[in-house]
Amino acid sequence: MKVTVHRKAHFNAAHRLHNPSWSAAQNTEVFGKCNNPNYHGHNYGVTVSVRGEIDPGTGYVIDMKVLKQLIRTHVEEPFDHRNLNLDTEEFKNVNPTAENIAVVIWHKLRPHLNDALELKITLHETERNSVEFDGH
Amino acid sequence: MKVTVHRKAHFNAAHRLHNPSWSAAQNTEVFGKCNNPNYHGHNYGVTVSVRGEIDPGTGYVIDMKVLKQLIRTHVEEPFDHRNLNLDTEEFKNVNPTAENIAVVIWHKLRPHLNDALELKITLHETERNSVEFDGH
Amino acid sequence: MKVTVHRKAHFNAAHRLHNPSWSAAQNTEVFGKCNNPNYHGHNYGVTVSVRGEIDPGTGYVIDMKVLKQLIRTHVEEPFDHRNLNLDTEEFKNVNPTAENIAVVIWHKLRPHLNDALELKITLHETERNSVEFDGH
Amino acid sequence: MKVTVHRKAHFNAAHRLHNPSWSAAQNTEVFGKCNNPNYHGHNYGVTVSVRGEIDPGTGYVIDMKVLKQLIRTHVEEPFDHRNLNLDTEEFKNVNPTAENIAVVIWHKLRPHLNDALELKITLHETERNSVEFDGH
Amino acid sequence: MKVTVHRKAHFNAAHRLHNPSWSAAQNTEVFGKCNNPNYHGHNYGVTVSVRGEIDPGTGYVIDMKVLKQLIRTHVEEPFDHRNLNLDTEEFKNVNPTAENIAVVIWHKLRPHLNDALELKITLHETERNSVEFDGH
Amino acid sequence: MKVTVHRKAHFNAAHRLHNPSWSAAQNTEVFGKCNNPNYHGHNYGVTVSVRGEIDPGTGYVIDMKVLKQLIRTHVEEPFDHRNLNLDTEEFKNVNPTAENIAVVIWHKLRPHLNDALELKITLHETERNSVEFDGH
Repeated sequence: MKVTVHRKAHFNAAHRLHNPSWSAAQNTEVFGKCNNPNYHGHNYGVTVSVRGEIDPGTGYVIDMKVLKQLIRTHVEEPFDHRNLNLDTEEFKNVNPTAENIAVVIWHKLRPHLNDALELKITLHETERNSVEFDGH
Repeated sequence: MKVTVHRKAHFNAAHRLHNPSWSAAQNTEVFGKCNNPNYHGHNYGVTVSVRGEIDPGTGYVIDMKVLKQLIRTHVEEPFDHRNLNLDTEEFKNVNPTAENIAVVIWHKLRPHLNDALELKITLHETERNSVEFDGH
Repeated sequence: MKVTVHRKAHFNAAHRLHNPSWSAAQNTEVFGKCNNPNYHGHNYGVTVSVRGEIDPGTGYVIDMKVLKQLIRTHVEEPFDHRNLNLDTEEFKNVNPTAENIAVVIWHKLRPHLNDALELKITLHETERNSVEFDGH
Repeated sequence: MKVTVHRKAHFNAAHRLHNPSWSAAQNTEVFGKCNNPNYHGHNYGVTVSVRGEIDPGTGYVIDMKVLKQLIRTHVEEPFDHRNLNLDTEEFKNVNPTAENIAVVIWHKLRPHLNDALELKITLHETERNSVEFDGH
Repeated sequence: MKVTVHRKAHFNAAHRLHNPSWSAAQNTEVFGKCNNPNYHGHNYGVTVSVRGEIDPGTGYVIDMKVLKQLIRTHVEEPFDHRNLNLDTEEFKNVNPTAENIAVVIWHKLRPHLNDALELKITLHETERNSVEFDGH
Repeated sequence: MKVTVHRKAHFNAAHRLHNPSWSAAQNTEVFGKCNNPNYHGHNYGVTVSVRGEIDPGTGYVIDMKVLKQLIRTHVEEPFDHRNLNLDTEEFKNVNPTAENIAVVIWHKLRPHLNDALELKITLHETERNSVEFDGH
């Protein structure tokens, strides 16, 4: 019997959608105002979901204090108040769409969780747009 | 590897729950105040979820601008500021419960999406009541 | 020293904006799709705010259970799951704009509150539109 | 073809995380301030999700009025404005973590639903922490 | 010309409404289930509002980092994961109604703000109940 | 008798807090990570509040369609998906703190409203930080 636990966090970042192998015209056509060379930004909301068995001693799937600290170290500290395109290694060669940000966060957190636990990332880019990635 | 993207939209509509093959008494007993012959209404929230592979060129599962326009054309324009029972073809012979509205929206959007993409509709009728339909 | 207490409630109703002294063309021009003769609807959110001194015995400005019951009797029961234009006396001759609904609710609740208490009504018509009326 | 319906409810309760087979030091180390012997509390949000076929007569998976009453009888009445550790049978010998509360609610509601219906419980403990249990 | 800045915070606490100068019967009659001797609890939301002139050097009314730290020291640390009746000096002899909690927080923060700044406290006890106090 | 109407809108922008008359060290000390030379960003929420008499013909204080268009023209179009520091005239020489953004928006909208109407701007920078400016 498994339970899923969800923990929410936030980071505020600048980004720009751009494909360097395309012409300026093609970037404008596909990405529109998201291609602004001076960047724009978002309050990103990230929900980290971990699924596993309840530990009979603690009553926890995972200690939320531990999960909160993992998110702080691997997501909030590197991404908060940063320019994703300029200030992070992860998006030097990866276009920071919501989809790619969710995949990157999944890969950053996965090594820090016990193999028996399943992981899903939900990323909110705006009130109306969000994405989910569970590794499959 | 697949990612799910979610896009939210809204429409404000009047409706009435009613089964024309039942007596007035049976309609009142089952649907209560939702059977009011003069209608009542809701701010419906609709979340359209699309699951598929990330396109390596765009970094998108589907361009949100395209998805937003599909929802506008096939959901918001026909349903917003309408009486679902009187003003729409879809609910002429279908009782506009939240369940049936979600199924109708799924069938309206499905033909406009690539076959490789999965589709799920979440419909919020009130802050406390919502439904989901994914075609299965 | 005064404290303001706020209590939220909800009602789901159909309505239509219409001025019977105007031509159909003028109604369409001013009210647009809100003039649909078959009605549309909303989940209305109403916040009732009462300002006064804290009673030293109870620690309350007003007992929330009393305020909740006043809202149920004078707002939710007459308006919930109704057509404001057809099913209520209050909007027989008053156009049910958000502004007018807030004023009507204020006048319905005012007689049931002690004269020493101030009253303000906030009405949410959609997530993006709301109005406030405090009697002045 | 199945649809999932969701119904939200709330209860406000005190609780304390504690494992009586552990030392005070171990309880403090694992549960931190959640182990406060004088208790703390939460506004718990519970979403009950029921999945099944749409009834062709009603257009419902389950009548929301029936589901609302089941939640009132089996969740809100026994848990609202209670101390989970002291006032309930369910948590006399079960540590009231969010995970365990979700599992307990699932088992309280399961017998009252038709076998053809699937059940999932989502419990919000704070704005940032929530858990889900679907019986598997 | 003045601007108001708002900063939100949260604390989770147990409490009980009780007037020790009243009989048990009177306490039950007035406070109902809020009088439970074993306590219940809430996720309290507190919004601290500060009004003043914009500093021309910083562009701030008050540095949000300073305001956040003041709320942490004087509200979150003493009240979070506590039993307000048993664990705090402030409510040893004051009934912890939402109204009184807002007044207490106002008095705890007022001395730490420049006299030229106005202060208002908004306290959310539940999603539907909240109170405001501005010192007047 | 006056009513206040509120209309919400959003824009997503990059910005950087910086005082060019200060040293780099002073900027870092005061603005911390908000001084990042590569910018960060936010989903800004703006609520425009207009107070005035109800027009007896329309039942409106101001037509929400007109107000929505004013916000689109004077706030969303110039600021959405922009870098406030680099792409706008308004913040070429004004530090784009939340306080200053609210004041700028107030001055941009004020000339487009009838003198009899009062105007207030509420700007949400994050879920926890917001500011208000009403011209006084």
